[in-house]
Amino acid sequence: MAAEPGSVRPGGRTARVRSAVLAAAGDALAEHGMAGLDLADVARRADVGRTTVYRRWGSVPALVADLLADMAEQSLPRVETGSLLEDLLANARLVRRTLVDPRQGALFKAMIAAAACDDRTAEALHRFYAARIAEWAPCVDQAVERGEVPPGTDSHEVVRAVSAPLYYRFLASGGPLDEAVARRCARAAVEAARAGVFVSD
Amino acid sequence: MAAEPGSVRPGGRTARVRSAVLAAAGDALAEHGMAGLDLADVARRADVGRTTVYRRWGSVPALVADLLADMAEQSLPRVETGSLLEDLLANARLVRRTLVDPRQGALFKAMIAAAACDDRTAEALHRFYAARIAEWAPCVDQAVERGEVPPGTDSHEVVRAVSAPLYYRFLASGGPLDEAVARRCARAAVEAARAGVFVSD
Repeated sequence: MAAEPGSVRPGGRTARVRSAVLAAAGDALAEHGMAGLDLADVARRADVGRTTVYRRWGSVPALVADLLADMAEQSLPRVETGSLLEDLLANARLVRRTLVDPRQGALFKAMIAAAACDDRTAEALHRFYAARIAEWAPCVDQAVERGEVPPGTDSHEVVRAVSAPLYYRFLASGGPLDEAVARRCARAAVEAARAGVFVSD
Repeated sequence: MAAEPGSVRPGGRTARVRSAVLAAAGDALAEHGMAGLDLADVARRADVGRTTVYRRWGSVPALVADLLADMAEQSLPRVETGSLLEDLLANARLVRRTLVDPRQGALFKAMIAAAACDDRTAEALHRFYAARIAEWAPCVDQAVERGEVPPGTDSHEVVRAVSAPLYYRFLASGGPLDEAVARRCARAAVEAARAGVFVSD
């Protein structure tokens, strides 16, 4: 099995096959990008029958969509520090670490490039980010309850604002993705939220 | 010539050929993405000899790099309204209009996807954004002189902060790219700048 120790989830053979296939698909994407993703190669890497992979996923976009769904499920839970700035700083650091990680960064670049060319992959990508944003949004709702930011603050918009400058650098403008940038992302989102910029109309 | 009326720049045959070839390359990218970009097809669309295109650009990444350099040169100049919020709102609206425009949006998606897979294209893309950010940065420097934001504010970082949420939606999370979002981008950048978030260490 191509799956690493500890990465095989419970749930019997079906779950083990999915785990191995998605790990192999992630490896192939990180190594070669979307152009290098091929169901037969993924089956070989995962040591799973080719027929199983074709029957269960059927196409590259379906496989990538399932990989994104799995990544959303497996992602780390949010933190709860009691301070909006500290919570969002933890979020910014997590996003930064993901993007600068060689495997994860390459994987996200490949999936975002694929989403730019394929609507089904774009929808799966949007669902992935929606799940991640929903996971972290309660940090902002709790800050509203504590009186740190005004009532009516759109918590999803605040969480989006933290990630956005990191992704802009990563995908468009380039530039360092360091701890100072992560701190600035969190501070900028908090200051704008405090000023009421994210209060829904 | 495939060039539209008014788009042929002065400078003789060499400049006319470049203009026609880059317009054809932009059309091909917007229509079919990077996978559809082929020097022979661009030559045919531009009604320019294939040899000329191969001799002058030689490769797809070189052609895309030249297109990005031309786009940076041809881009609209910044505004100067006397108010940081109004200046940055104009910037946010310009970026928003570009991304929602069917041809321009498709062109940027194709180039960003290409940059995710090719270092030379990524460098050209970074130079494009550096030129656009440098064009708008004086808005922030003038706001520092007027006392709107603190001395030492990193003007390039403020301009990046305006674009980032628009690009994040466009490339990663999805979601509407409307006037309300553009306003929020400009307001968030101004509030964070006023609070000193972008003062360089």
